[in-house]
Amino acid sequence: MDANDKCGIFAAYDSKTAARDIYLGLHALQHRGQEGAGIVLSQGGNDYRVHKDLGLVTNVFSEKDLRHLEKDYCGDETPTFGLGHDRYSTSGEVTAANTQPFVATHQDRVISIAHNGDLTNAGQLKESLEEDGSVFSKSSDSEVILHKVIRADGGDPIKQIKQGLEGVKGAFSLLFMFSEGIGAVRDPNGFRPLFVGKRENPETSVGGTSYYFASETCAFDILGAEMIEEVPPGGGYFVSEDGLETFDISSDTSQGLCSFEPIYFSRPDSFYNGKSIHKTRVEMGKALWEEHPVEADLVTGVPDSANSATKGVAEAAGLPNEITLIRSHYTGRTFISPYQSMRDLKVKKKFNLVPDTVEGQRVVLVDDSIVRGTTMKNITQMFRECGAAEIHIRIASPPLTNPCYYGIDIPDPEELLVNRVDKEDLPEFFGADSVEYLSVESVRETVGEENCRACFTGNYPVEVDESERFTKDSEDTAWDEAPQANGVGPGLTHIEEPSDADL
Amino acid sequence: MDANDKCGIFAAYDSKTAARDIYLGLHALQHRGQEGAGIVLSQGGNDYRVHKDLGLVTNVFSEKDLRHLEKDYCGDETPTFGLGHDRYSTSGEVTAANTQPFVATHQDRVISIAHNGDLTNAGQLKESLEEDGSVFSKSSDSEVILHKVIRADGGDPIKQIKQGLEGVKGAFSLLFMFSEGIGAVRDPNGFRPLFVGKRENPETSVGGTSYYFASETCAFDILGAEMIEEVPPGGGYFVSEDGLETFDISSDTSQGLCSFEPIYFSRPDSFYNGKSIHKTRVEMGKALWEEHPVEADLVTGVPDSANSATKGVAEAAGLPNEITLIRSHYTGRTFISPYQSMRDLKVKKKFNLVPDTVEGQRVVLVDDSIVRGTTMKNITQMFRECGAAEIHIRIASPPLTNPCYYGIDIPDPEELLVNRVDKEDLPEFFGADSVEYLSVESVRETVGEENCRACFTGNYPVEVDESERFTKDSEDTAWDEAPQANGVGPGLTHIEEPSDADL
Amino acid sequence: MDANDKCGIFAAYDSKTAARDIYLGLHALQHRGQEGAGIVLSQGGNDYRVHKDLGLVTNVFSEKDLRHLEKDYCGDETPTFGLGHDRYSTSGEVTAANTQPFVATHQDRVISIAHNGDLTNAGQLKESLEEDGSVFSKSSDSEVILHKVIRADGGDPIKQIKQGLEGVKGAFSLLFMFSEGIGAVRDPNGFRPLFVGKRENPETSVGGTSYYFASETCAFDILGAEMIEEVPPGGGYFVSEDGLETFDISSDTSQGLCSFEPIYFSRPDSFYNGKSIHKTRVEMGKALWEEHPVEADLVTGVPDSANSATKGVAEAAGLPNEITLIRSHYTGRTFISPYQSMRDLKVKKKFNLVPDTVEGQRVVLVDDSIVRGTTMKNITQMFRECGAAEIHIRIASPPLTNPCYYGIDIPDPEELLVNRVDKEDLPEFFGADSVEYLSVESVRETVGEENCRACFTGNYPVEVDESERFTKDSEDTAWDEAPQANGVGPGLTHIEEPSDADL
Amino acid sequence: MDANDKCGIFAAYDSKTAARDIYLGLHALQHRGQEGAGIVLSQGGNDYRVHKDLGLVTNVFSEKDLRHLEKDYCGDETPTFGLGHDRYSTSGEVTAANTQPFVATHQDRVISIAHNGDLTNAGQLKESLEEDGSVFSKSSDSEVILHKVIRADGGDPIKQIKQGLEGVKGAFSLLFMFSEGIGAVRDPNGFRPLFVGKRENPETSVGGTSYYFASETCAFDILGAEMIEEVPPGGGYFVSEDGLETFDISSDTSQGLCSFEPIYFSRPDSFYNGKSIHKTRVEMGKALWEEHPVEADLVTGVPDSANSATKGVAEAAGLPNEITLIRSHYTGRTFISPYQSMRDLKVKKKFNLVPDTVEGQRVVLVDDSIVRGTTMKNITQMFRECGAAEIHIRIASPPLTNPCYYGIDIPDPEELLVNRVDKEDLPEFFGADSVEYLSVESVRETVGEENCRACFTGNYPVEVDESERFTKDSEDTAWDEAPQANGVGPGLTHIEEPSDADL
Repeated sequence: MDANDKCGIFAAYDSKTAARDIYLGLHALQHRGQEGAGIVLSQGGNDYRVHKDLGLVTNVFSEKDLRHLEKDYCGDETPTFGLGHDRYSTSGEVTAANTQPFVATHQDRVISIAHNGDLTNAGQLKESLEEDGSVFSKSSDSEVILHKVIRADGGDPIKQIKQGLEGVKGAFSLLFMFSEGIGAVRDPNGFRPLFVGKRENPETSVGGTSYYFASETCAFDILGAEMIEEVPPGGGYFVSEDGLETFDISSDTSQGLCSFEPIYFSRPDSFYNGKSIHKTRVEMGKALWEEHPVEADLVTGVPDSANSATKGVAEAAGLPNEITLIRSHYTGRTFISPYQSMRDLKVKKKFNLVPDTVEGQRVVLVDDSIVRGTTMKNITQMFRECGAAEIHIRIASPPLTNPCYYGIDIPDPEELLVNRVDKEDLPEFFGADSVEYLSVESVRETVGEENCRACFTGNYPVEVDESERFTKDSEDTAWDEAPQANGVGPGLTHIEEPSDADL
Repeated sequence: MDANDKCGIFAAYDSKTAARDIYLGLHALQHRGQEGAGIVLSQGGNDYRVHKDLGLVTNVFSEKDLRHLEKDYCGDETPTFGLGHDRYSTSGEVTAANTQPFVATHQDRVISIAHNGDLTNAGQLKESLEEDGSVFSKSSDSEVILHKVIRADGGDPIKQIKQGLEGVKGAFSLLFMFSEGIGAVRDPNGFRPLFVGKRENPETSVGGTSYYFASETCAFDILGAEMIEEVPPGGGYFVSEDGLETFDISSDTSQGLCSFEPIYFSRPDSFYNGKSIHKTRVEMGKALWEEHPVEADLVTGVPDSANSATKGVAEAAGLPNEITLIRSHYTGRTFISPYQSMRDLKVKKKFNLVPDTVEGQRVVLVDDSIVRGTTMKNITQMFRECGAAEIHIRIASPPLTNPCYYGIDIPDPEELLVNRVDKEDLPEFFGADSVEYLSVESVRETVGEENCRACFTGNYPVEVDESERFTKDSEDTAWDEAPQANGVGPGLTHIEEPSDADL
Repeated sequence: MDANDKCGIFAAYDSKTAARDIYLGLHALQHRGQEGAGIVLSQGGNDYRVHKDLGLVTNVFSEKDLRHLEKDYCGDETPTFGLGHDRYSTSGEVTAANTQPFVATHQDRVISIAHNGDLTNAGQLKESLEEDGSVFSKSSDSEVILHKVIRADGGDPIKQIKQGLEGVKGAFSLLFMFSEGIGAVRDPNGFRPLFVGKRENPETSVGGTSYYFASETCAFDILGAEMIEEVPPGGGYFVSEDGLETFDISSDTSQGLCSFEPIYFSRPDSFYNGKSIHKTRVEMGKALWEEHPVEADLVTGVPDSANSATKGVAEAAGLPNEITLIRSHYTGRTFISPYQSMRDLKVKKKFNLVPDTVEGQRVVLVDDSIVRGTTMKNITQMFRECGAAEIHIRIASPPLTNPCYYGIDIPDPEELLVNRVDKEDLPEFFGADSVEYLSVESVRETVGEENCRACFTGNYPVEVDESERFTKDSEDTAWDEAPQANGVGPGLTHIEEPSDADL
Repeated sequence: MDANDKCGIFAAYDSKTAARDIYLGLHALQHRGQEGAGIVLSQGGNDYRVHKDLGLVTNVFSEKDLRHLEKDYCGDETPTFGLGHDRYSTSGEVTAANTQPFVATHQDRVISIAHNGDLTNAGQLKESLEEDGSVFSKSSDSEVILHKVIRADGGDPIKQIKQGLEGVKGAFSLLFMFSEGIGAVRDPNGFRPLFVGKRENPETSVGGTSYYFASETCAFDILGAEMIEEVPPGGGYFVSEDGLETFDISSDTSQGLCSFEPIYFSRPDSFYNGKSIHKTRVEMGKALWEEHPVEADLVTGVPDSANSATKGVAEAAGLPNEITLIRSHYTGRTFISPYQSMRDLKVKKKFNLVPDTVEGQRVVLVDDSIVRGTTMKNITQMFRECGAAEIHIRIASPPLTNPCYYGIDIPDPEELLVNRVDKEDLPEFFGADSVEYLSVESVRETVGEENCRACFTGNYPVEVDESERFTKDSEDTAWDEAPQANGVGPGLTHIEEPSDADL
């Protein structure tokens, strides 16, 4: 099943420039998903207009597309609310079919959905829905949620959302577009982020205030909007002509945000838990140094994803924070095949080393995380070739050991570096003098008591019954294999190296 | 609701070049739909691979796309069966969402569908399915059929098709892909064409014979396949490892093929009713002359759609069949805006008159049909400017007066020429000396006793309850308006002038 | 050297819609060249604006491109004159560098050129220009002419053209844009066509009349302009603020238009020598029948290029002109690779046979010309497979035996059918019952006494010294090989089968 | 005239992967020019193959294009040498005509050129060449050089280059491809950078060593090649079967590299003058602080172009180097139009501020240079809105006051900030507390005694006679205006804000 891992979602309510607001919000959230993007709009009623395709936001939407969404609308009114989705990059997709938002119609309802997360019991829910007559057209757990909600007892959108989400387990930050307005809701653990913001806006249809929902607060900044608050775990909002209402889908909640959000996914300029992601990363860098100090001449990091942690390490160490790796601004998707005399093109086209910064130096080399380790191995070799005297790798997160069931594409456990290479062999693997990781304990302290750290510990805050999640052993082979046929399997295989798609 | 009017459908069973066979079949059927194209393939089991997009077949599928469908398939086997769809051109579509084939999953079933036709009770069926739990993601009656079939009692594909189609009314030529093989079925009136063919083929997985289904027989010719027979109205085929089986979905059937198929839609080299469409058109031309002879010097027609009828008129009249209008081979979709000093660019970029063929001549000018009349008006003016002495317009079909509920996009009745201009004023409207149409009676005689002529007569062979078809006045506004939002409304508005997309 | 064979050229003088006029003219001449297109515009003075690229006119120029040419012009004035070029299709070109019009600057002159033809002494001229300092940037004889003219004694454009063309031998229909206006000139034999036309146009800057030059008169028709006359062989026109002036570049002239223009290249609706190309072709068809009658039941032709000749044959024979081959309207450039079980895809994707028209019939099958014979061989086979009793191939032109040095890409002589297969073996080669060609004498009679028939006879009206033309054996290897490097060699290899790009 | 300002040039000699080597070299130099790219290749002899187009290197060249350049070559040999060019971004270009490399043929020579720089006497040279017969097809001073060289006394490429460059004044780093090999030469002042490198490579045709020339040393790093040396001002190299030869074009030389190369253009990981550009920038940052210290809490810079200078400022100040501005990785070319309620979209889509880093802080804000000041003004406002207590702008280069005649597109002097706003009004203009620039003296000390600083001082190392450079007042209006017609005027207008295109 196609989990909507690490996507970006954004909604606007009551803005005569809703299409453009959402476009900008999705642009600011582009780092959360580069495969595809889509926007659905409404001016109330069951009319809607949707545009979505594979590619970056700036490729999917031209000025002409936006005007088309705004002006060629059936009816006379400008659409004033809607939602959008940045889809995480996958490989092998032939069509744009799985690009969100999804729209469904049922009886007198048209509902759209944008989803970030991954359900733990989608298989079970799907089976149950099918018994009650559902037919599915996509291999996505987001369609399961959409069916649950649109088939729930209607009338009041809030009731419908609450009833529809009963029994839905796992990770979900969700945006819904109803004919009445926009709903936003977050799972009881709050695995994936979601925020509500607002902006005084003379160009509204009702009250002079536009409301926004976004995966990260940086999407408010580009609009000049301000964050109202984080949508609380288990909590929801509905904004309509009646204004902003809150509701709960659960009282048993915890602050279980995925630790990888502050470690790697979120933009450093986004806010979480009262401070910027940047500041949290600086703290993790400081903790990393305190746990694993070493005699060295300088500290340096892999740009841009490790910039903040590196600053923390350097500050704690009292060592210079040297600029060594230069990151190319022109790393497009297409690139020539590697050829015999050129190794490591993928890394070389992205990073080059300032040659006179490391010769004879004892270097502390910081990265935010390690998945398979191939990029870091190539970087270490570059440092060696430029004459670094010692290389001490410091990773500002714990070793990645376990799969994530709440929305991150981590490779199969056996491919993870620490499951393949013994800790004491890591220096040799990298060609480094020492390799150390941040402790789980420090993540707990810097990120938060309740935050999900399952990928480091295997302690899963929401129970995962594999048989409810994937149906590999059931007879429901359609469910199992059809997604494979689309090149998007149930395995979560998409995070190669965090550094590859940072910020 | 989005009717699948005038589409082309094609399927292949048991050919190791199934992807290419379907590609060629869709290419031969391209005249039936130029908006989009898609292919879905299987090698058995619930795996499938689909590729579809907006555009002509040659644009949607590159050699690389075909190889991808064939070789990068999950598993080791080459897909050996599948189906494809040419979608009729519509305007304003923003996404490729409605491009067929559609795929749905339900319990242990994955079924794909390609549909040509238009249901008369889709609204009612949809409502009933929704009551039983269906949620829809597209605004297409093909999705209604797909839900009906996939939710029918399973196990045996033939049973499932038969049960699924119970209560489905209107026009449908359908192709289904099951994990077991390919099903083909046609509504009891046989409104839309469908044929079954075969070819000896060493590259099969089972028995050395490949089977094909196609909207028209010209699609068999490109493959060197031979027609077995027309799929009979109310009849069906299922081809699997067990070979070719036939079944019925109704015993109350008639030979009700749409008369517009021989008049305009089908290719002249396609076979129907024991002869080529070309020959039928020649007969219509002869009948036209016998009904409406006139003193004249030469006969000429609008190429290429009226070529056959013109030949019939000239033969019956014993007059020369002159080549006067030259049709450009380079009429792409994009073209510059008209400008003040240049009128009638749309017609002029397509047709030009051989200047020394009509001066001083009394011309019989033949076209296959007239919708709004604008193209013919411009053509008549060209003839006048080149000095034609008299212009006698002869149309090889009756006046178009009524909407079609079985799969053709005819403009709103009030836009149809004969509903706007009195018969006696037609010569003045066109600037012609006389204007005559073929009689309905002659259509009956040349095309067939039972063929549907509702658009000329208003006698609808399958009852149409508007309330079951569109739900304009119900509260089900989603159903009604959502398609509008997609730019494809329930109104059938897509046939501008038959001459624009002939052959 | 890259000859500008079979290109289309068009110019407009004094029209505020000059860009659009030229666009439409090039569109009407698209059959003369499909590889690339370009337009250069001026409003007087040495400013100009050029846009050109690979592709069809409708692909190269969007509405936005035209507006850009018209409005974003430096200065305030709308450009009111200019010229354009349709380039003949070649293979292997990597860049758009050889797309015309070419522009050159020299001292106080900016001159643009559009050329249709092929010089016989370009090598010699180039050498001489190089001795006098010329450096070339393209592998095109058009650049040689441009250098000759721009370096000629300036001041008066007419003088400059006349002096510049001294010593230039071979085939050239030329359009020049000077800052003063537009020049048009034709070689003394008039190998390639060129016409002058006019239109009353309120949107001019000077006198209310717009003047046009075009390769064929069909380009005037799309604009509603009328032909004034054929630019006479050895004659020229210059149109400027002073109106339309004529001049001569030679007094030793003949009406040597290439016979292949009426036979195949020109559109049937174009005018030449007092009648339409269509009528000339009908006459050739009649002559063909009179030379080679046969007992038969019906006449049919390869559409659309042989339509007119076929009509002539049928009329002379008193036999029915049957419609048998249906030509696809969707033969784009890209197509899948042929595969084992599918032979002759290239022909099959283009033509299909109406199956019930030829069974048991003795068929006279007409085409306009034969080059290598592969297409006709496949077509003959289709007729056989559909049961034709006899097939009598009649070609409405003489056998092609010799290379053309005046602007047509004929394959190497050894590839030409009649140089490979003895006349008596042709029926066996095609699988036909008889194969006959039109005599050269009949071409002389129907097309004109002086028209060039060198490709049929080897009698070249302008002497060709290979050493002056190509420099294969000289040391000027740059000239010889550089074009090869661009994939466009000096050999004229681009006419595969006339039927492939007809009309 | 179209100066080849700030382009990247690269050549390879004797590598069987020459096409790929050049591709990678151009990719590494992409920051020097993003408008277009091209490669020309040879295997010796006068054959060559060229591919060039508008766009980034990764867009212009697909894997297929590279294979085409390598394998579909005429003849059997793989091309083993060639050169390439990254063209600087300009606006309004309609065609790819001015994309380099340029190729010219003359007598027995084919020569290609790639040029970075700007001549000061191109007008005069052009006039003289025209008197001797030259005709020009482009509005580029590179074509003037190409004509000079190809028309020089031939035989020996080195002699031809030396003689051809006699009298050529201004800035030129040049690469030439002859049939014998690659030439590289630099003007006597060495305004634009050029380096020679080598790599042991088993895949050569001669001696096991591949030689490379590049605008910056970072292009050697991606290939694993090592720098041999900077091509000295007034010096040249020719590499052929005979190995690497050196020569001089002048004995009157100076180390006059443009100061803007280390300040802004070059990549920080490139080497110049014995150290990395990064280290030079750190020194400039230190000098900046020493000249203009201020009481503050933190130092921060505009990423990425000011990263190194900011590090220098922070180190000298002993203040924290805070990460405040986050630079988006997704700033493509296309973007929606600004709309009323959204100001400053251009800056906002590129930069966002980490909100909790500057509140209440006295901030030293560093940028590398200021042109018009609009970006910095918007950034300052962001800092104010986030509550910065004080903002002290420090620019790590002197005020830009004068035009550059040696290859940089600086806006018209009256648009330059310091020519519009008095120094004492700059804080008010920006909304800052203080604004200070680095002194020219410090540039001299950190960058080098002789480096060109004319844009800061108006002291031009090579005399500029406007009448020899542009011919605005001459009658040679073609030369003057034609480039305008191409949208690329003689004015140097292309550097908007250095931060917009940094590394």
